[in-house]
Amino acid sequence: MGTIKPGGLGIKTRLFQVIFESDTRLAKGFDVFLALLIFLSVGIILLDSVPEYHARFGELFYVMEWGVTLLFTIELALRIYCLEKPKLYLKSFYGVIDVLAVLPTWLALLFPGAQTLVVVRLLRTLRLFRVLEMMTLVGEGRLLMDALIRSRDQILLFLFAVLLVVTIFSSLLYLIEPAEAGFTSIPKSIYWGIVTLTTVGYGDITPVTPWGQFISMMIMLTGYSIIALPVGVFSAEVIRALRAERYSEEACPGCGKHRHEVDARYCKYCGTWLDEETPDPRSSG
Amino acid sequence: MGTIKPGGLGIKTRLFQVIFESDTRLAKGFDVFLALLIFLSVGIILLDSVPEYHARFGELFYVMEWGVTLLFTIELALRIYCLEKPKLYLKSFYGVIDVLAVLPTWLALLFPGAQTLVVVRLLRTLRLFRVLEMMTLVGEGRLLMDALIRSRDQILLFLFAVLLVVTIFSSLLYLIEPAEAGFTSIPKSIYWGIVTLTTVGYGDITPVTPWGQFISMMIMLTGYSIIALPVGVFSAEVIRALRAERYSEEACPGCGKHRHEVDARYCKYCGTWLDEETPDPRSSG
Amino acid sequence: MGTIKPGGLGIKTRLFQVIFESDTRLAKGFDVFLALLIFLSVGIILLDSVPEYHARFGELFYVMEWGVTLLFTIELALRIYCLEKPKLYLKSFYGVIDVLAVLPTWLALLFPGAQTLVVVRLLRTLRLFRVLEMMTLVGEGRLLMDALIRSRDQILLFLFAVLLVVTIFSSLLYLIEPAEAGFTSIPKSIYWGIVTLTTVGYGDITPVTPWGQFISMMIMLTGYSIIALPVGVFSAEVIRALRAERYSEEACPGCGKHRHEVDARYCKYCGTWLDEETPDPRSSG
Amino acid sequence: MGTIKPGGLGIKTRLFQVIFESDTRLAKGFDVFLALLIFLSVGIILLDSVPEYHARFGELFYVMEWGVTLLFTIELALRIYCLEKPKLYLKSFYGVIDVLAVLPTWLALLFPGAQTLVVVRLLRTLRLFRVLEMMTLVGEGRLLMDALIRSRDQILLFLFAVLLVVTIFSSLLYLIEPAEAGFTSIPKSIYWGIVTLTTVGYGDITPVTPWGQFISMMIMLTGYSIIALPVGVFSAEVIRALRAERYSEEACPGCGKHRHEVDARYCKYCGTWLDEETPDPRSSG
Repeated sequence: MGTIKPGGLGIKTRLFQVIFESDTRLAKGFDVFLALLIFLSVGIILLDSVPEYHARFGELFYVMEWGVTLLFTIELALRIYCLEKPKLYLKSFYGVIDVLAVLPTWLALLFPGAQTLVVVRLLRTLRLFRVLEMMTLVGEGRLLMDALIRSRDQILLFLFAVLLVVTIFSSLLYLIEPAEAGFTSIPKSIYWGIVTLTTVGYGDITPVTPWGQFISMMIMLTGYSIIALPVGVFSAEVIRALRAERYSEEACPGCGKHRHEVDARYCKYCGTWLDEETPDPRSSG
Repeated sequence: MGTIKPGGLGIKTRLFQVIFESDTRLAKGFDVFLALLIFLSVGIILLDSVPEYHARFGELFYVMEWGVTLLFTIELALRIYCLEKPKLYLKSFYGVIDVLAVLPTWLALLFPGAQTLVVVRLLRTLRLFRVLEMMTLVGEGRLLMDALIRSRDQILLFLFAVLLVVTIFSSLLYLIEPAEAGFTSIPKSIYWGIVTLTTVGYGDITPVTPWGQFISMMIMLTGYSIIALPVGVFSAEVIRALRAERYSEEACPGCGKHRHEVDARYCKYCGTWLDEETPDPRSSG
Repeated sequence: MGTIKPGGLGIKTRLFQVIFESDTRLAKGFDVFLALLIFLSVGIILLDSVPEYHARFGELFYVMEWGVTLLFTIELALRIYCLEKPKLYLKSFYGVIDVLAVLPTWLALLFPGAQTLVVVRLLRTLRLFRVLEMMTLVGEGRLLMDALIRSRDQILLFLFAVLLVVTIFSSLLYLIEPAEAGFTSIPKSIYWGIVTLTTVGYGDITPVTPWGQFISMMIMLTGYSIIALPVGVFSAEVIRALRAERYSEEACPGCGKHRHEVDARYCKYCGTWLDEETPDPRSSG
Repeated sequence: MGTIKPGGLGIKTRLFQVIFESDTRLAKGFDVFLALLIFLSVGIILLDSVPEYHARFGELFYVMEWGVTLLFTIELALRIYCLEKPKLYLKSFYGVIDVLAVLPTWLALLFPGAQTLVVVRLLRTLRLFRVLEMMTLVGEGRLLMDALIRSRDQILLFLFAVLLVVTIFSSLLYLIEPAEAGFTSIPKSIYWGIVTLTTVGYGDITPVTPWGQFISMMIMLTGYSIIALPVGVFSAEVIRALRAERYSEEACPGCGKHRHEVDARYCKYCGTWLDEETPDPRSSG
């Protein structure tokens, strides 16, 4: 957020502090109110999609939706107003989402069909992370995120290998199984393969020939066993991240380097005595 | 339990020792008897719910249920009798459960329908943990519980993120898939999303359009991979807990090094006597 | 095996060495032959259960089954013959299995129905572990087994807690869901609960009411998350077992105690200098 | 790759460098082009298997398939041309795949049915790993692969034990369950057992008797719990591999202690210079 600065002193600065920061009491209140409003708007979308509720409370939902849309629009206007470079904000991830959250309802005035796009507003739930972050509730999550980023490459490689294997075996089943069993094309067989390997197992497509069932068993056992890979890699990364706490934060007084283990007595880079409170036994020897 | 004290010496104290504590042989016998009675009452509820068994043994079950209810009621009366502050007990977690366990059968005398509430008695199985705890069989479980509590925040954050992602993708499928496929409302789509992401995969609702199947595959692969997160976090916490158990937090008074095992008497690096409260046997030898 | 001794020198001793031990080349050949015979007998049982194969090769299977039975009977007779205390063997785990493996075919001469019990012979596959063990292929497995035994109590406690939770929630669904959805009794609801919590998800019984689906989602998310517990506990135990390699096998020359870490220079119990090849720096100070 | 050498200087050598190596810019371009061509050919196979697309774009796909086949054939010819010992290459893993990738289309000129074998070309996706490897994107994967190889024996032993248990319990269900439930033979019961234990749970075969459901629950809980074994073993191996990467195996020449980090130049315990091949900068200062 470092690039988005308040547009001046006075009202704009105060608005900026309330909307974009969360140090003051008012700013925290705004964050909580925004979170509740997002939950409410999501609740309306969810309930309005149920035919019975739509029939009974449809008009109430319509009014509430307009209420939420107006509040979101005002919030958006204030955000734009109190920023120096509003374009930068509108092009940012959360900016795009904020605009998408209010657009469908307004568009529906012109094009009646646009109403259904209101589900886009669900993306606003992502802002909840922002709110959580501001309230420093996700300090815990950073460690998790770091470990996830570190193990990302290995997990993507794993998924790529999984996809290749699934594609090969699914094509085999496309050749073996009759079309009546549901294996009508290779893409559909791949869908079945993913359903099987991830152990979801809907049962909408199932092999019926002995060989098809045999290969399925291979896929299942593979899927059951190789889950160990991402789990193992990620576990190791979390443990490594937790162990990072084992390194002292002190720099060496000799060479200034960091990352000394907490039980180190001499700098591993230049051999300087690290414990400044007791004398170096070498100097007395 | 520290706040619940026996109501006086004599009979009350002895009753308290048998019912609430488990040092004496009689008290242990009472715990075992109570555990068996809870298992029996649960067994009756389970079997009585099977139509065939209800038809054949319904009356026997009825008599046994009253027998168990009477025994539970007597136990409850004794608990109240032997305590100094019975109200405190009745408001406690186990107190509420103990009352709920006997209430339905008595209420059924006045309101015949109340009988079905007897399943509430199943909650009494929770008391089994209490019995286990008293018999110190769950010493092992404490370590597990500690690790669970330490990783709770991260796992809740994980579940929250999972719910957001499921909500967004499920809404997408609600838009894409025809209602005949089962995606009749967003809440139902979310139900499908959870069934898919957790790899349960009932198959009561399955996508039928190519795009729906493609997004489903994304959800499945996500669900299959991100299980690594709670597992990794929890594994790391268990490993940390096990290690904390083994290494002392004290530094050696001789060389200042850490990471001595808890049963160490001499520093493994410099041979200094570690236990500062007792003299070093070598100096007196 | 320590209690089972050969019955004398000469033929009995040699037989014992071939059948019960696996040092000599002949004994190893016997083990391999036995393993192959077990695989063959299992193969016959499997194929004979397929109606088409039974119709076409039924008589061949019948002859082969008698062949295998005769070979197993001869082996059993030789085992009994070469042992000093055959009763001890017959009461042992593998002894019972060896008898059960041949009994059904012989009994079928008297009682035709006994034939179907031949599947008991599948238990003989357990002997394959014995063969594997003798061929020291499972040296790897011991570490795994040790970790499994160490984490057994925690995993059993975990399963017990899981069963309690499933029982309580399944009973709730029995009250909520209509019988037509398949929740006809509490035991059947528990079956559904286990199918759901373990993420198997057959789909033969599925909730149809909104509340039932909501509670199901809770069970699914629980089952999806708490798999972390047994995995975490077991991972920690395997890591602990692997780390056991970090302890030196050498005993302290001062007090004779073991379990010194490989980087220890002084005995942590008595302070004696551990490295016998270099002098103790204290003696020169 | 060491055994496959270029057939001479000039054009052959340069061709070899482009096709088999990936140091030069042209060679990297060739790798990317090959990867894209493989993806394209896989895409054609996938889409051509969908009946609608086949009906509409069938002729286009046919032309493109011939185009890809010609390009692959030219590539194969060039590979053979620029090698000194082409037979060695043709017998290698990737050589066989390269031949199989072009054979079906050519064979279809003689035998019309051979066309369906074109799915064999999917195996060419395996070459993508080769391309990835050359572009050193899989450096990350090596650690993962090492850990996988180290834990392979234990995971295979685990799968073997799982298969034995599934075979025994599935046979039991074959005896208990009626044939109408789908348990028509032991092999089919084993298929059901694997579907259940791996928590896939299609639901195409489900137990209907109380005892069958009870045993199923045992299998489910087993499958749900024992996933901890391969995961635990693999996690431990990844952690060990990551740690091995960080700590040197050398002991300090001054104090004999181990566990120095690989980038350490001085012993962290006694300050001794660790790198014996170069002089200590302190002594010259």
